[in-house]
Amino acid sequence: MLIVQKYGGTSVGSLERIENVAKRVAKARDEGNDLVVVVSAMSGETNKLIEYAHHFSKTPSKREMDILLSSGERVTASLLAIALQEMGYKAIAMTGRQAGIKTDDSHTYARISSIDTQNIENAIKDGNIVIVAGFQGINEHGNVTTLGRGGSDLSAVALAGALKADACEIYSDVDGIYTTDPRIEPKAKKLDFISYDEMLELSSLGAKVLQNRSVELAKKMGVKIIAKSSFTDGKGTIIAQEDKNMEEVLVSGIALDKNQARVSLRDIPDRPGIAADIFKKLANEQINVDMIIQNASKEGMTNLGFTVPQSEIERAKKVIASVSDEIGGSDYDENVCKVSIVGVGMKSHSGIAAKAFESLADNSINIEMISTSEIKISMIIDEKFGELAVRVLHETYELDK
Amino acid sequence: MLIVQKYGGTSVGSLERIENVAKRVAKARDEGNDLVVVVSAMSGETNKLIEYAHHFSKTPSKREMDILLSSGERVTASLLAIALQEMGYKAIAMTGRQAGIKTDDSHTYARISSIDTQNIENAIKDGNIVIVAGFQGINEHGNVTTLGRGGSDLSAVALAGALKADACEIYSDVDGIYTTDPRIEPKAKKLDFISYDEMLELSSLGAKVLQNRSVELAKKMGVKIIAKSSFTDGKGTIIAQEDKNMEEVLVSGIALDKNQARVSLRDIPDRPGIAADIFKKLANEQINVDMIIQNASKEGMTNLGFTVPQSEIERAKKVIASVSDEIGGSDYDENVCKVSIVGVGMKSHSGIAAKAFESLADNSINIEMISTSEIKISMIIDEKFGELAVRVLHETYELDK
Repeated sequence: MLIVQKYGGTSVGSLERIENVAKRVAKARDEGNDLVVVVSAMSGETNKLIEYAHHFSKTPSKREMDILLSSGERVTASLLAIALQEMGYKAIAMTGRQAGIKTDDSHTYARISSIDTQNIENAIKDGNIVIVAGFQGINEHGNVTTLGRGGSDLSAVALAGALKADACEIYSDVDGIYTTDPRIEPKAKKLDFISYDEMLELSSLGAKVLQNRSVELAKKMGVKIIAKSSFTDGKGTIIAQEDKNMEEVLVSGIALDKNQARVSLRDIPDRPGIAADIFKKLANEQINVDMIIQNASKEGMTNLGFTVPQSEIERAKKVIASVSDEIGGSDYDENVCKVSIVGVGMKSHSGIAAKAFESLADNSINIEMISTSEIKISMIIDEKFGELAVRVLHETYELDK
Repeated sequence: MLIVQKYGGTSVGSLERIENVAKRVAKARDEGNDLVVVVSAMSGETNKLIEYAHHFSKTPSKREMDILLSSGERVTASLLAIALQEMGYKAIAMTGRQAGIKTDDSHTYARISSIDTQNIENAIKDGNIVIVAGFQGINEHGNVTTLGRGGSDLSAVALAGALKADACEIYSDVDGIYTTDPRIEPKAKKLDFISYDEMLELSSLGAKVLQNRSVELAKKMGVKIIAKSSFTDGKGTIIAQEDKNMEEVLVSGIALDKNQARVSLRDIPDRPGIAADIFKKLANEQINVDMIIQNASKEGMTNLGFTVPQSEIERAKKVIASVSDEIGGSDYDENVCKVSIVGVGMKSHSGIAAKAFESLADNSINIEMISTSEIKISMIIDEKFGELAVRVLHETYELDK
């Protein structure tokens, strides 16, 4: 098998931990696998470098930041290769450039445009374990680029896709994806399997484990991800295309997002372009709108509700003020949160949503907004009921079983 | 003017010092110069990375060491560029690769094979101060290489040569080249000028200021070096081709090398090949022979003396033992040192050497070996008289005047 492994910052956070990773890689090698190992910078390193840059400038040039930040992964990659060589394994370290990772020009948040796998394939043919510095590539002008926070996950998934690897194992200090946050609901259970789409909807649960862009890319390229801990020997959670036959699996997990503020606009003239106009203005101000719902109200009028991150509500208010002539009225609630139920195929089971509303009502939790998608039901509720709602819903769908 | 500046590890040893360097660069820019600035890693960084590698292996692979070690200079280069940008200057950071520095394959001790100055020239044309990560390049296979200890000096001199720069300013924490080590002779004076050849012979004096390979390269490429301190505003010392007219300048400096051990071989058959055979065997054992002198002794026999670093004397003894059948006898002295008088044109002034011998004799210092070159007289004496000999000779040639 050809396996791409990726070890995050905590997993390579000290020389002892790098040694531990070397042993894991060696074990996978002893089992007869070809291996490409992507590593992050030692935990804390990237933040240290960012602090250095901020000593000189609040808005350091992104091109220079990329040269700066890409250095951390190079250190880990070369150290891991040296450790494996000392253990008697043939290993070779590669920078993002040497690994053939080409990106667009968006410094500090580049997107991978293509991967030339020639170097890696030759090295594997020569019997090497290939260690790749994650998070980085070069653009068409030969400038160093980085892929944004969590970018090493992207490097790993993209390499797994380009190399047609059998699996992409993402190692962190968490042993997989849980049905909900175990700090809120101690009965939360680790999932053995979750689909790409569910994982994307549950991103808040997986944020510490797996970067969202990587899941999107894995879905697009059909890369099977296995999220594992580098500190234990569990099986982890497989993230892949859902199995169409497993219709009995409905709800996979419950996510809670406390960084939400609600905006409600009343009596907007129901003609084309009004909503578009409002959202365009919000976008121009770099305000990220999350949930959006629209309801007809009086004749020819409509109500519009949406949520934004709490830190952006003040700016949102200013935007709304600038269109206040055109709308009937507005109100805001900064003390809300979003609880989401995620599961493949839930839409075809109408009972699922009803069950959620009923459970919350039984616990006197009022729902302010509802939005549903193919695989998710999201509800905006009072922030103080967030954790309770998670526990109630976790039990409702018997996720601890 | 186009000036290449190079700042060593101490000069960029903290964020505050990088800021100080940015101000110096800005000043040179304000004076109307085009600038290419080569930087070392922050002092201590390279040693830290070497320690990391040695945690895993006593003999880490050199290819991986180069990826590891090259990261430190990238950090300084990007930080300095960011600092300059913040001060309102147009600046761009480049890795060794981006600066077009091509080397041979000798990882950790690569030699620069060529420099493609296109990128740098374009950046200068665009009005940029170009900041280059020193000490590094890539070989023809695209692998990262480093140039050995002090390699940033080499990067700077090579760039100055390739760009036909008007000067190459090498900044460190020392304000120039002195007539001798001020710790031995407090009356030592800073030289305003020294020739390449004298600098090479005085390398032990300049070791902290300037790497020997850089001086050789500067001589070859005709690059004028100015050794300066980044902490003061002195004029420094110019290192360039000697001025043929300055015949009155004789002795430039006195150097002391305490890392010497003497080997004397007696009664060697005086036929071709014997000395060659002995030195070949020493070379095979990686023993660095410094001074060599040969004297006829009895008819058909010759005496051979040479010095090696003290740490290599035990291995040298083994090599000599292996040829003991062919020679009359051998003796060793590990407690010797080498005092050298350096100055252009001294050979044509026969009085120079006599003066040295006389001064040392007056102070009861016995000379065990003598070797002379076009610009140097070296004497092996008892180690305990080393500092005294330096002071005596410094006064003899009136270097404090």
